[in-house]
Amino acid sequence: MASEYNNQWIGKRTIRPDGEDKVTGRAAFGADFAQAGMLWGKVLRSPHPHARIKSIDLDRAAAAPGVKAVMSGADLVDFPLDTPVMVGPADMRFVSRNVMARDKALYAGHAVAAVAATTAEAAEAALALIDVDYEPLPWVIDVDDAMQPDAPVLHDFLRTQGDASAADAPTNVASRAEFTLGDVDDAFAEADVVIERDFKTKPVHQGYIEPHACLVSVAADGRATIWSSSQGHFMVRNATAKMTGAKLSEIRAIPAEIGGGFGGKTIVYLEPLAYTLSKKAGAPVKMVMTREEVFRATGPTAGSSNTIKIGARRDGRIVAAEATFRFQAGAFPGSPVRGASNCAFAPYAIDNVKVVGYDVVANRPKCNAYRAPGSPIAAFGVESVIDELAAELGLDPIEFRLKNAAREGTRAAYGPTFRRIGFEETLHAARDHPHYATPKNGRQGRGVACGFWFNVGGESSAQVNVNEDGTVAVTTGHPDIGGSRASMVNIVAETLGIHYHNVSVQVGDTNTIGYSATTGGSRVTFSAGTAVSEATERVVEQLRERAALLWDIDPAAVDWNNGHARPAGANAGDFEPLSLAELAAKASQTGGPITAHVSVNAQGAAPAFATHVCDVEVDEETGRVEVVRYTAVQDAGRAIHPGYVEGQMQGGVAQGIGWALNEEYIFDASGRLDNAGFLDYRMPVASDLPMIDTVVVEVPNDAHPHGVRGVGEVPIAPPMAAVANAIHDAVGLRLRELPMSPPKVLAALTAGDDETP
Amino acid sequence: MASEYNNQWIGKRTIRPDGEDKVTGRAAFGADFAQAGMLWGKVLRSPHPHARIKSIDLDRAAAAPGVKAVMSGADLVDFPLDTPVMVGPADMRFVSRNVMARDKALYAGHAVAAVAATTAEAAEAALALIDVDYEPLPWVIDVDDAMQPDAPVLHDFLRTQGDASAADAPTNVASRAEFTLGDVDDAFAEADVVIERDFKTKPVHQGYIEPHACLVSVAADGRATIWSSSQGHFMVRNATAKMTGAKLSEIRAIPAEIGGGFGGKTIVYLEPLAYTLSKKAGAPVKMVMTREEVFRATGPTAGSSNTIKIGARRDGRIVAAEATFRFQAGAFPGSPVRGASNCAFAPYAIDNVKVVGYDVVANRPKCNAYRAPGSPIAAFGVESVIDELAAELGLDPIEFRLKNAAREGTRAAYGPTFRRIGFEETLHAARDHPHYATPKNGRQGRGVACGFWFNVGGESSAQVNVNEDGTVAVTTGHPDIGGSRASMVNIVAETLGIHYHNVSVQVGDTNTIGYSATTGGSRVTFSAGTAVSEATERVVEQLRERAALLWDIDPAAVDWNNGHARPAGANAGDFEPLSLAELAAKASQTGGPITAHVSVNAQGAAPAFATHVCDVEVDEETGRVEVVRYTAVQDAGRAIHPGYVEGQMQGGVAQGIGWALNEEYIFDASGRLDNAGFLDYRMPVASDLPMIDTVVVEVPNDAHPHGVRGVGEVPIAPPMAAVANAIHDAVGLRLRELPMSPPKVLAALTAGDDETP
Repeated sequence: MASEYNNQWIGKRTIRPDGEDKVTGRAAFGADFAQAGMLWGKVLRSPHPHARIKSIDLDRAAAAPGVKAVMSGADLVDFPLDTPVMVGPADMRFVSRNVMARDKALYAGHAVAAVAATTAEAAEAALALIDVDYEPLPWVIDVDDAMQPDAPVLHDFLRTQGDASAADAPTNVASRAEFTLGDVDDAFAEADVVIERDFKTKPVHQGYIEPHACLVSVAADGRATIWSSSQGHFMVRNATAKMTGAKLSEIRAIPAEIGGGFGGKTIVYLEPLAYTLSKKAGAPVKMVMTREEVFRATGPTAGSSNTIKIGARRDGRIVAAEATFRFQAGAFPGSPVRGASNCAFAPYAIDNVKVVGYDVVANRPKCNAYRAPGSPIAAFGVESVIDELAAELGLDPIEFRLKNAAREGTRAAYGPTFRRIGFEETLHAARDHPHYATPKNGRQGRGVACGFWFNVGGESSAQVNVNEDGTVAVTTGHPDIGGSRASMVNIVAETLGIHYHNVSVQVGDTNTIGYSATTGGSRVTFSAGTAVSEATERVVEQLRERAALLWDIDPAAVDWNNGHARPAGANAGDFEPLSLAELAAKASQTGGPITAHVSVNAQGAAPAFATHVCDVEVDEETGRVEVVRYTAVQDAGRAIHPGYVEGQMQGGVAQGIGWALNEEYIFDASGRLDNAGFLDYRMPVASDLPMIDTVVVEVPNDAHPHGVRGVGEVPIAPPMAAVANAIHDAVGLRLRELPMSPPKVLAALTAGDDETP
Repeated sequence: MASEYNNQWIGKRTIRPDGEDKVTGRAAFGADFAQAGMLWGKVLRSPHPHARIKSIDLDRAAAAPGVKAVMSGADLVDFPLDTPVMVGPADMRFVSRNVMARDKALYAGHAVAAVAATTAEAAEAALALIDVDYEPLPWVIDVDDAMQPDAPVLHDFLRTQGDASAADAPTNVASRAEFTLGDVDDAFAEADVVIERDFKTKPVHQGYIEPHACLVSVAADGRATIWSSSQGHFMVRNATAKMTGAKLSEIRAIPAEIGGGFGGKTIVYLEPLAYTLSKKAGAPVKMVMTREEVFRATGPTAGSSNTIKIGARRDGRIVAAEATFRFQAGAFPGSPVRGASNCAFAPYAIDNVKVVGYDVVANRPKCNAYRAPGSPIAAFGVESVIDELAAELGLDPIEFRLKNAAREGTRAAYGPTFRRIGFEETLHAARDHPHYATPKNGRQGRGVACGFWFNVGGESSAQVNVNEDGTVAVTTGHPDIGGSRASMVNIVAETLGIHYHNVSVQVGDTNTIGYSATTGGSRVTFSAGTAVSEATERVVEQLRERAALLWDIDPAAVDWNNGHARPAGANAGDFEPLSLAELAAKASQTGGPITAHVSVNAQGAAPAFATHVCDVEVDEETGRVEVVRYTAVQDAGRAIHPGYVEGQMQGGVAQGIGWALNEEYIFDASGRLDNAGFLDYRMPVASDLPMIDTVVVEVPNDAHPHGVRGVGEVPIAPPMAAVANAIHDAVGLRLRELPMSPPKVLAALTAGDDETP
């Protein structure tokens, strides 16, 4: 869709500032840091999915050659279990016990002890000398199993929050949350068609290419530096400080480049361990996970078991919707069930809605955020049922959605009334796209599905400095996970009216830039963009003041446009325009350096909607599903850098297709993960996917200076349902359990029915 | 002197934030950085003091094993010689040609080519393969020789600036500057006593313990990172950009810790070379000077030949003073003769003054700033003559100075009228000090001398961030050469009313902090202190606003004191005070992070005066002079951190004593430096010096929020004259040529006269 804007740099595909570094290998990722005298830290992990730790004897390991420090969970701060200890959205009671087990190991892979030694080999060898006395306990992994009354219970202290009827007894159900709008029972009774289905999804890993890695150096006086790869070095600092008892001022967290995060690097695993080992050893400690450790011990998203029920009138109007989400949180509470509950019906204007969500612990790695947390799981069920309803009603799936689409003024079931949104625009664009009009070949099927994500705002800081030659440096506090450097450059260049080549951009560390919350939730272009925009405006204000000083006129009589201060109108005086470079060269004489720092807690984030169209071919001999064409349409608000909006869309789709067709954790009979590597955990690679076509719709967010919404999350929401709906269209099967992998598709084809009751 | 202030942290001896790092070896200095794939750069230097470079053939070197890049001066930007190209106070026409020679080598040690190779050894070996065809030329080193009409001329383009009578012919006299006050000729005619003496001083090296070192990594797209030790990483960035044609936004200069600078690291030597080699090689390049290179090729201060004439009335009133300073600039114009000219008579209220200064080039390393540039050289002569005059007039040397001391309202000969100054206070404190009253032992002598330094202000930036736990991070843009981190922490802690342990401090790099001019001139505590103070006040303002928001009252009704927001008086309401930590914890809900950035061009720097008392013993058999007692009195304005004020005073005295007694460059008959190492270039070590007693006088500078003047420079001004005057007191010899080393003292003792005409 052609842009309606006439900007010089915003909306342009400028070359990304970190591009050459990343393709030439110059960029430094988490494992690329080193310090003189550095030790290597290694973690001992539980082989049991559930076991009481009766004792840990570190003495033999401590005496091993090259070993300089040993630790167990007892070396971290012991948070009482009855009071939340929050760092951002994360509860350190649980994160800390996930970082290193205390009295119990709760999954196979749970960290139980660590050592630091002069070489990685010496550290690895010393792990074998740690004597842990385990008492293996019964275990449970599947969420439905974990909710059974007789299930093995992970935490004695856990009681179901939000359920007045729940017994005051240990349980795996950490919480039950319900919200309603209207009266679903009455509405279902009046519906012409009601469809209710059960869905199961598997936990899938974020699959970032860069394993977790850090280097931590703690000085004798307690001042520490952390170099690590994360989505938020302020989070790294704050969480590490909390778990180790350090003051925030004592820790400087320096962000590495990040080799993928997708939500999975919004929390710490290694840093508090490396900090503790470094402090004990009096030397820097480096820790780098293996891929196997990443799979066994870092957060995938939740698996789930869900029920979706939607009722519509014969005229195509949805009158009621109900969902029950049972989410596997892993070893500690904190699944994204709330995200699923809130997103589930958000694209639709439905008067009667009821949603119940359960957060359930089980003996598997604590789950962590993964792109639009919860939304794709909800969308898989909801958009599958919507597709079935459309077919039942004899309506085109896009037309059916258009009849029910949320628009400006719609009150979303989860609470807010939408300001201007672009859902209908994405449906129109999908309907009008050549893809949708192209006849399908042979046994191909076509599916449509939609998705929703809130997008969020929050705290960000930005620094803008004018250099003496008129070039400009902008700093934010957010790791660049999706091209945010390029977007910030576009905003600064646009606001100042200078060539973007003259703007440099960097990610500041926790001490040199103001607090900036974690990169995630599709918030950086919105929040940091707000801070950068305001800081640049303050620079413009100073430039006008400096020109006014040089011209000896009122600053109000100076305009700034196209990179120059100009007299504002004929009355202001007759002066030659002064360029940014000219004003920069005179900064010293006109008051000193021209700089601005802005910190915001940005409000007014606005949601993103997506509509995807997917064509598949199903190999009926093998059950293999091939995605042959894919078009993703999305409302980006204003696309500050269309190239990286499209990249986010394509990346989200690729991950969604993996989730849909192949990715899953396979546990053996002893509760250990059987496929902890990329050979066996099957993520899609380029040859598995078609070119993913993208259409960026721009319905600006009027609460942002440049109309930004946020684009990174929503593209992962529709694909599972789009693929499932396409499979149904191709072979008549309604698949409701992920992944729709060849064995399952083949089994369903062989069974010969379409699973529809 | 007991402080008259009642501050909580300002004026307290807080523990320096960088102390543990520096004593445990954790601090990273210029040579401590490394990058994967890093090359080593080495420089080929001219063996000739003066030679035409007929050709440089780099081909054999380029083909040598491991060599990845070669360069000569032709690879740097070729600045036309007729237009100054300023970076701060430095003229890149000359700095660039000093960094690497073009058509001529101008001193033995002048860089002529460089190579980068995979190892330092390979680079060193390749230097021998560079074929330079030199045409040796006549050379001149001594300043008096260089001023002779028939002296070998270094630069064809050089004409004497500021001398209308000078011939339009090539000369070594780069400039002549004169200023006058009143009528010296008339005044001398009316004086009762006139003494005129000639003095010679030798160039001395700053002698920083850390040789110049840098690591430069230039990316394929031109973005570059420089890690290096300097007194100003903005200077490093700007000078390197200018010499290589880069934009400022392309270079990020990250400051290393600095192992001493004393003015000598206010300019670049290696960075433009490493940048050029890195760009050519496509890999990071590290360069580290040897100590020999430091001596042969980096800036000492000027040597000089001076004439001082002072006339006084019998009543002790000085009526006229005249000085001629002939300063050796080294290979390019730019000696500190202007500093000498301006400082010379500044401590005294004299109505008739004439000063003439010559800046003279010669075939030795280009001189560079050294602590109070020019002032010690002037003081040696002026304070020696003052001492002689006092003796002639039969006055106590302190009483004589008190009769003539500049005070508030005195118009200094170099221009300004002094605001409140503390010169008399230093004289009183010296006179009243037990040292001055203690009888001398046996053959000891006692000398008094005074000194002056302007102190300067200028551009500085500061960032203050409140962390979520109420700790605070402050960042400035100045390398910490004398404890400035500790001073900034004191200012922040004082202003916020929190414990200084809760304030962390760091030096930001060129991209993340606003422009901050070079650390030097005794400006950082003044200028950065101003910026830090203002930024902290802005934070206080926000804290008051946040409290007002929480209390729902007017911010004007909120006081900030002792680390808490409090209702301002009974009418403001009855609220429990809110601590910084409580407000910090609520920052997210009250508007976002609490941060402030301030950039200033600080005005109102105020001068420092010092009075020193020195006791010596002269070994008449060897000529060795031992300083047996030394007391330095100095007006610091307000001493933000008295420990580092005293450290600056002691360090300046130690360097001054080295300058007085031992340090000099010894050239052999071929014009090559003969003593390029610490074994032969004799700097004083701890066992050479007595405990240097210090008295800090505090006469605040009312143009600074905390009364700061600046303390680092002035203590090096008095020692040479103080020692010389003490030698005279001990053995009756007036020594007027530095260093007053054993051979010279012995020769003078043997000659048996006191050299007084």
